[in-house]
Amino acid sequence: MRLRVLIRLKPGIMDVQGTAIQRALAGLGFGDVGDLRVGKVIEVDVPGDSVDAARRRVDEMCRKLLVNPILEDYAVEPVVG
Amino acid sequence: MRLRVLIRLKPGIMDVQGTAIQRALAGLGFGDVGDLRVGKVIEVDVPGDSVDAARRRVDEMCRKLLVNPILEDYAVEPVVG
Repeated sequence: MRLRVLIRLKPGIMDVQGTAIQRALAGLGFGDVGDLRVGKVIEVDVPGDSVDAARRRVDEMCRKLLVNPILEDYAVEPVVG
Repeated sequence: MRLRVLIRLKPGIMDVQGTAIQRALAGLGFGDVGDLRVGKVIEVDVPGDSVDAARRRVDEMCRKLLVNPILEDYAVEPVVG
């Protein structure tokens, strides 16, 4: 069972990397793009066939290691295909 | 139209960060997790209502700035909800 964790800065937290990319895009002629945010994606293979059980394990990994809950939000989703 | 770009290291490229996370997880009792890869996610607002047109623009951004085609693969998908 392969799952994907999307980790993003919480809405109130300034995304310096995102702002830098947005400025660079403006310099390349993409000045009309709106809000841009950069985050991390972690894809992991968890043994077992149950999506729910795998999701619970990955959730525990997020709480214990992968995510900083002060600064970051996360979402866990199955990888399709 | 909000789109998400998932940027991952190509299969042959060593993912040092992923290996480090996998080891740390093993130390926390998650020794049974399989392959783990770390990548970037960029979410961006592109003006217009056409998914196809927005996807083409984001594709151009990837080729011109966001992605290093030597090391990285990417996928563009609409953000639902």
